Amino acid sequence: MNSNRGPLLVFSGQSNRPLAEEICQHLGIHLGKSETIKFSNENLIVQYTESLREGDVFIVQSFSTPVSDAIMELLIMIDAAKSASAGRVTAVIPYYSYARSDKKDAPRISIAGRLVADLLQAAGADRVLTMTLHSPQVHGFFSVPVDHLSSDRVIAGHIRDTVTDSQNGVVLAPDSGSIKRASAIARRLNCGLAFIDKQRLTDTEVEPRALIGDVRGKKVYIVDDEISTAGSLVEAVNFAKRMGAQEVYVAVTHGVYTGPAIERIAALDAVEVASTNTVLVPQAKIDGSGGKLKVLSVAKLFADAISNIHTGESVSTLFE
Amino acid sequence: MNSNRGPLLVFSGQSNRPLAEEICQHLGIHLGKSETIKFSNENLIVQYTESLREGDVFIVQSFSTPVSDAIMELLIMIDAAKSASAGRVTAVIPYYSYARSDKKDAPRISIAGRLVADLLQAAGADRVLTMTLHSPQVHGFFSVPVDHLSSDRVIAGHIRDTVTDSQNGVVLAPDSGSIKRASAIARRLNCGLAFIDKQRLTDTEVEPRALIGDVRGKKVYIVDDEISTAGSLVEAVNFAKRMGAQEVYVAVTHGVYTGPAIERIAALDAVEVASTNTVLVPQAKIDGSGGKLKVLSVAKLFADAISNIHTGESVSTLFE
Amino acid sequence: MNSNRGPLLVFSGQSNRPLAEEICQHLGIHLGKSETIKFSNENLIVQYTESLREGDVFIVQSFSTPVSDAIMELLIMIDAAKSASAGRVTAVIPYYSYARSDKKDAPRISIAGRLVADLLQAAGADRVLTMTLHSPQVHGFFSVPVDHLSSDRVIAGHIRDTVTDSQNGVVLAPDSGSIKRASAIARRLNCGLAFIDKQRLTDTEVEPRALIGDVRGKKVYIVDDEISTAGSLVEAVNFAKRMGAQEVYVAVTHGVYTGPAIERIAALDAVEVASTNTVLVPQAKIDGSGGKLKVLSVAKLFADAISNIHTGESVSTLFE
Amino acid sequence: MNSNRGPLLVFSGQSNRPLAEEICQHLGIHLGKSETIKFSNENLIVQYTESLREGDVFIVQSFSTPVSDAIMELLIMIDAAKSASAGRVTAVIPYYSYARSDKKDAPRISIAGRLVADLLQAAGADRVLTMTLHSPQVHGFFSVPVDHLSSDRVIAGHIRDTVTDSQNGVVLAPDSGSIKRASAIARRLNCGLAFIDKQRLTDTEVEPRALIGDVRGKKVYIVDDEISTAGSLVEAVNFAKRMGAQEVYVAVTHGVYTGPAIERIAALDAVEVASTNTVLVPQAKIDGSGGKLKVLSVAKLFADAISNIHTGESVSTLFE
Amino acid sequence: MNSNRGPLLVFSGQSNRPLAEEICQHLGIHLGKSETIKFSNENLIVQYTESLREGDVFIVQSFSTPVSDAIMELLIMIDAAKSASAGRVTAVIPYYSYARSDKKDAPRISIAGRLVADLLQAAGADRVLTMTLHSPQVHGFFSVPVDHLSSDRVIAGHIRDTVTDSQNGVVLAPDSGSIKRASAIARRLNCGLAFIDKQRLTDTEVEPRALIGDVRGKKVYIVDDEISTAGSLVEAVNFAKRMGAQEVYVAVTHGVYTGPAIERIAALDAVEVASTNTVLVPQAKIDGSGGKLKVLSVAKLFADAISNIHTGESVSTLFE
Amino acid sequence: MNSNRGPLLVFSGQSNRPLAEEICQHLGIHLGKSETIKFSNENLIVQYTESLREGDVFIVQSFSTPVSDAIMELLIMIDAAKSASAGRVTAVIPYYSYARSDKKDAPRISIAGRLVADLLQAAGADRVLTMTLHSPQVHGFFSVPVDHLSSDRVIAGHIRDTVTDSQNGVVLAPDSGSIKRASAIARRLNCGLAFIDKQRLTDTEVEPRALIGDVRGKKVYIVDDEISTAGSLVEAVNFAKRMGAQEVYVAVTHGVYTGPAIERIAALDAVEVASTNTVLVPQAKIDGSGGKLKVLSVAKLFADAISNIHTGESVSTLFE
Repeated sequence: MNSNRGPLLVFSGQSNRPLAEEICQHLGIHLGKSETIKFSNENLIVQYTESLREGDVFIVQSFSTPVSDAIMELLIMIDAAKSASAGRVTAVIPYYSYARSDKKDAPRISIAGRLVADLLQAAGADRVLTMTLHSPQVHGFFSVPVDHLSSDRVIAGHIRDTVTDSQNGVVLAPDSGSIKRASAIARRLNCGLAFIDKQRLTDTEVEPRALIGDVRGKKVYIVDDEISTAGSLVEAVNFAKRMGAQEVYVAVTHGVYTGPAIERIAALDAVEVASTNTVLVPQAKIDGSGGKLKVLSVAKLFADAISNIHTGESVSTLFE
Repeated sequence: MNSNRGPLLVFSGQSNRPLAEEICQHLGIHLGKSETIKFSNENLIVQYTESLREGDVFIVQSFSTPVSDAIMELLIMIDAAKSASAGRVTAVIPYYSYARSDKKDAPRISIAGRLVADLLQAAGADRVLTMTLHSPQVHGFFSVPVDHLSSDRVIAGHIRDTVTDSQNGVVLAPDSGSIKRASAIARRLNCGLAFIDKQRLTDTEVEPRALIGDVRGKKVYIVDDEISTAGSLVEAVNFAKRMGAQEVYVAVTHGVYTGPAIERIAALDAVEVASTNTVLVPQAKIDGSGGKLKVLSVAKLFADAISNIHTGESVSTLFE
Repeated sequence: MNSNRGPLLVFSGQSNRPLAEEICQHLGIHLGKSETIKFSNENLIVQYTESLREGDVFIVQSFSTPVSDAIMELLIMIDAAKSASAGRVTAVIPYYSYARSDKKDAPRISIAGRLVADLLQAAGADRVLTMTLHSPQVHGFFSVPVDHLSSDRVIAGHIRDTVTDSQNGVVLAPDSGSIKRASAIARRLNCGLAFIDKQRLTDTEVEPRALIGDVRGKKVYIVDDEISTAGSLVEAVNFAKRMGAQEVYVAVTHGVYTGPAIERIAALDAVEVASTNTVLVPQAKIDGSGGKLKVLSVAKLFADAISNIHTGESVSTLFE
Repeated sequence: MNSNRGPLLVFSGQSNRPLAEEICQHLGIHLGKSETIKFSNENLIVQYTESLREGDVFIVQSFSTPVSDAIMELLIMIDAAKSASAGRVTAVIPYYSYARSDKKDAPRISIAGRLVADLLQAAGADRVLTMTLHSPQVHGFFSVPVDHLSSDRVIAGHIRDTVTDSQNGVVLAPDSGSIKRASAIARRLNCGLAFIDKQRLTDTEVEPRALIGDVRGKKVYIVDDEISTAGSLVEAVNFAKRMGAQEVYVAVTHGVYTGPAIERIAALDAVEVASTNTVLVPQAKIDGSGGKLKVLSVAKLFADAISNIHTGESVSTLFE
Repeated sequence: MNSNRGPLLVFSGQSNRPLAEEICQHLGIHLGKSETIKFSNENLIVQYTESLREGDVFIVQSFSTPVSDAIMELLIMIDAAKSASAGRVTAVIPYYSYARSDKKDAPRISIAGRLVADLLQAAGADRVLTMTLHSPQVHGFFSVPVDHLSSDRVIAGHIRDTVTDSQNGVVLAPDSGSIKRASAIARRLNCGLAFIDKQRLTDTEVEPRALIGDVRGKKVYIVDDEISTAGSLVEAVNFAKRMGAQEVYVAVTHGVYTGPAIERIAALDAVEVASTNTVLVPQAKIDGSGGKLKVLSVAKLFADAISNIHTGESVSTLFE
Repeated sequence: MNSNRGPLLVFSGQSNRPLAEEICQHLGIHLGKSETIKFSNENLIVQYTESLREGDVFIVQSFSTPVSDAIMELLIMIDAAKSASAGRVTAVIPYYSYARSDKKDAPRISIAGRLVADLLQAAGADRVLTMTLHSPQVHGFFSVPVDHLSSDRVIAGHIRDTVTDSQNGVVLAPDSGSIKRASAIARRLNCGLAFIDKQRLTDTEVEPRALIGDVRGKKVYIVDDEISTAGSLVEAVNFAKRMGAQEVYVAVTHGVYTGPAIERIAALDAVEVASTNTVLVPQAKIDGSGGKLKVLSVAKLFADAISNIHTGESVSTLFE
């Protein structure tokens, strides 16, 4: 690769090393060497065991369990890289969990999506590379340049490959916040669109109010940005079925799968649940899902973005 | 008013002095004295003609035509207030037009909603008070404290007061971006909800794709954050009518009304078009609309917020 | 051109594209492609339609009418360039109008020349290239590197070329603020020097108090940094004539020419009024001046400066 | 309490609420109300359920297990307090674990004690109140004012109260880094001083090289800043015993007690192990130590410091 | 004095304690207690020996010999005050020597007047109070609020008191940079104005080129911002005399008097040389001048400004 | 040297030009040209007389007498280099005197080691290269990358070369603060270790309390970071002798030698006193010491570090 920058170096935190390694394979380089130790008082220390001087450094870290450790490790890695004289440090955050904290929907809370952006910059990040933020406005929380990749092409492609006559189905947004994303997928598939209008019962309870649109007798594709406990997914699938959906497929970007998620998915009245590898899905979870879980790789997309950032080529072409 | 702060002082830029004066009447104080001059080379200069030392200063300025002048005047007023030793400066921006620039929906553009937030802070704003940002995430673009007022109560109250049996109607969101706001109004009115799914034909053309939900024979309330040329409003009203709406009412927060807006509204197949006074609506426009334009005052809401900020009482109670 | 930097890219805002194009011709490159749109609510949006990644980007924008739009457009272009991963962004501001707001000559005003410098840096400018600031101290308002070009050589050369026996004339500074500049030109022309001492009658009225020096029977060259309404120019010319000046020539850097300027110049008892093209002078104005207006190009000077900045050669050599 | 500030408000994170409550009892106020929720994707959210407007807010949080969560929770609480218009926010960090990361003793690592200081400031902390930092230089890592309390008086007082003829004993520093602290305690007790010189065998192994000083037949007081696994403590006690110490007492500031610490202490050839309540020591640990663990309260010291900070009285008088 | 701020505290560095004490007498308070020690390695340390918590702290320090020590001492005092929890710190700099470094009149130099302003802010200064900056634009080098006092009234008053029929005299500006100040004094005295046009012979040599205006048979008042070696003063006096001046009086703000200044003044063909006490003039210098030196006190003006800043009253009224 | 950076340029302030020249000889380049002038009002001005555009600039300046001038000169040089468009500026500070101000050991003082770090960054330093900071934690006072060289290898090597059977001697730390450094040297020499425990009598008086360890009949090597007046050195040597030391050798990094230092050293009961050339030791001092002073050069170490920083090679390898 031809670049004005110093050598391309990719390092990884502990949260998703398999993805980092797959990215490096696409790039044709070895994953950079570093060691993370947790002291007995739980202080984290990271040491790079190869020189970073003047290097064009990318650090891959998803904000997945344990999330606070993942963030602290990334902040420490950025700081250590800068003080070790890295030429440029790009935080590669395939899953930026705090994007969900993007507004003040209650008084006296933090918009933590902005706070974490500020922390990354305080630690010294020069750029950020991420995928499918909960809302596109979160891009504006960063004052450093951000390349915000989309998994739309991967997800729409997967539905097209998996479902016969996919253009006769309906993309179903499980709530109003996911309509824009659902609408984009529907246009890619040239198919219908519907959404579930919800209402808040109490501070913590929300229930479906109506399914706006028509799913009767149709194949339904529920798309969203992430699944964690799969609680609202179960509700959406059941609601779609009650409204007459013929078959339900689920495809999300970030498969977090916590708590009862895997049992729920195993029992789910859906054909399959696909997600990308922005979050590491252990084989045990796939096995536990009764074969319903599918994992789609986005490593090539990240590798292409890193390569273009390094050589100074346009990244926006990767979105088409 | 009992406050640890210095004296409460409210000043106004040129964009909406009537609103500033109405706010001051509610507060029981006089509008602060300042002069704005545009030099022959178009440099703006603002001079405060009373002392601001240690004062708790609020500067009211909407981003309405001419918008760039309004922004520059506000920045200069903030800077002048800080260097004149104001104790605290709050930018009161009833209509923050650049909130619409909240994401990168095309490559190589600015998220200007964030940029303008940074400019306000660079000029020295300590706080911001605003209303109905285009998306709630824009709150997170600011690093200073923001009080983000909502016009939902005013708008829902107006519909309830104006329309008989309003709970049998349907709130119609003119595009997917306004669903959350529409849903909140629908819940306040305890009525139905629908939205128009749009698709982008070219970079500049967008057309309705489908009306998701049911408006046949119903009174329809189109709610949105702002109207400028009223082009997409005409389209939404016509579409609703084509889909069988009985009567259409329109209520938005920011009535910008530019270009052909007033003629279009005069000719519109809608009962009325209501907006608040965050943007100054000259009497000539109201007259030109054939009586269709209604202006709802939010001065009391701003006055209460300013009073609570000054005395240190909770502002969130104003939202209920 | 040999540079460690990425490719040289020159873009232009709307205020003076002919100058930007002339600069590009000297540089032997094409003007970069960008589009500026003013939305119906007057929000500005700028999109670069070619990649800027790692580029050494120069954005040409004079602060001429409409000034606030010109500033906002430049700020947005800088921000968009930085977030599109430009390697370095230099704001090229041939006419920095707010340099006139350089001190507190009244209480409770903004030193807006400093404020605008801060805004440019908040937006992300890495450097500034400008010409003939109202006072040289304004250079210190910027914390990023500034190359401050002088039009002295161009102006002195023009007088020498135009006036026979120019060394027998007198350079006349129209007020005490322009003496240093006048003195520098006088030394280049090896001729005499005089100035008009003024006094402030009221806040807005100023009148000549005395002409310090001797202009009787001499050719007089009035030099200044800018002309806007030409009001004080008329006064200076008349005063010089009353004091016995034989012929009057006028040469300034920034020809802003607003309001009654062109009529006044057409009627002026002066041989000619020359200014540079830092501000675009439309042909209609030249025609309207009865042939008195002359425009001197500084494009070559800007092109040389940009080239030297890009390749890392000394810019100070351009001043000799 | 008489203060120019707004009302005194003390909140607590999850790490050491009993200490926060004890502090509030000394202050004669109630602990402020807040709720911390961990979402299913492990995002933390904190909501204050009472108004903080203009308040003088103190947030108590020790960096104890789980440490990364404790830090993230504190950062979020600070950010939420600032954006909820707290007048001033003081981070009260009785145990600042990352003070141990205070230098570059290996290449390409982070001085995380400085990084975390920067993060606290990025989140908006106006001040910090802490106790017995691993080295006093860590104070200089903060750019906001820090009140750095010492537990020396509490620890020396405890030894004097517990040991007969304490002035005939010897304070033993377990390594060269703790000599200054040991020397200060020795002066308070008017007794002898010794230290263990260590050498690094490999990157992770360190062994005692020599006991510099004389402990033969003496009561020995090992003092240090913290105990985590108690591994080096066991070594120090054994070494002291081998060198002829009559009895060994241990007193440290921060009792972290992780991993095998409690079993080791139960088996330790020492009379007792005392630490303060900067870190919460659960009753189960005390029971498991065979009665060897003693907990000394520093709540009064923190309460006095908070009271003096709030009212503007000198805090340095608390150190005498 | 009635103030929302904490107690008014005035401290002094070593450069001009008599002025600080005189200011305190006018304020009716005692000068705050602090000690400055220069260690054997020349490190400066300053300790405040009374509490500053929440205080409204003013630190008086002129940039007089040894200047670098004066600056370092002030920076250390500001930093110490901030970290000792002062509520607000105002740097009172009666003579800001680096204001003379206000532009780039040679390539590759620092505009040190801006640099020192940045250093003061980096150290933590909240405000600055100063007098007669070399050029008024230097005000804009600071981003914190500045109160910029003028000695014009004191100087004009002194001339009026000293010279009979002062309105028949002429104020002479010794170079073009001092015309604005000279013109202001001339207007206060209602008398004539003249100036000396200079030219640069080499990088270090400058010579008078012409006296623009008329001084023949007149009393001449040379006014300037500062005198250091008095070299150019000697030249100006002699030039005025050669041009026929009857008597010459000199009045400047900052009497630095270095090197041969006192001998030169003793030998000067001028009636007297007056300056204010912004810089401490030792009695030995006054004696050495043969009675020519006069010192005018500005302590009352500084005391009034400090009092108004503290209580929040307008400072601009002090300028009239 | 192969580097992505612009040309390598080394400049020097006035404090230690011989070291800068020796560094340049090792690098095979000429020392960059600059001129420093002290104006009659003591303002410093520095002009670079060769272009720095895009250069990789290193500025060598020790904080030695006059220290405040040295610091101001360095700050001005950094600022001038940045504004002259240097590509990167590294402050090379062989002796960073303020590292001794590294903690708050008294109330209401500045941690000036941190303050000066902040000033360097405010002036624009991109990196720092220094040697043997008083405590290693001072590294964390900088937020820019620091390369912290150690003189341990030079000092241990000198002792090994000078003393026969050096492994039978004892390294003596003159106070508890120097134990870590002494221990590191002892390990390099494979010899014994001892230290002097001191106590503070009054604020300014400290006296030895005990010599912890055994020096009887041994060759003793006193090592420390700096010698200024040599007062505590005399005390340490005498104490060692009283405790039975056979011969005493002294080796420190920074030989400041102020006040009575040279006479004291001439009279000292020690074989020799060695220090490095981080501080310039004039020949007169060496002569005055009766031949006891030895100067060890660290120029090669600095040259290697500069070379590695410039080319992007690891600097940590230089420490082994």
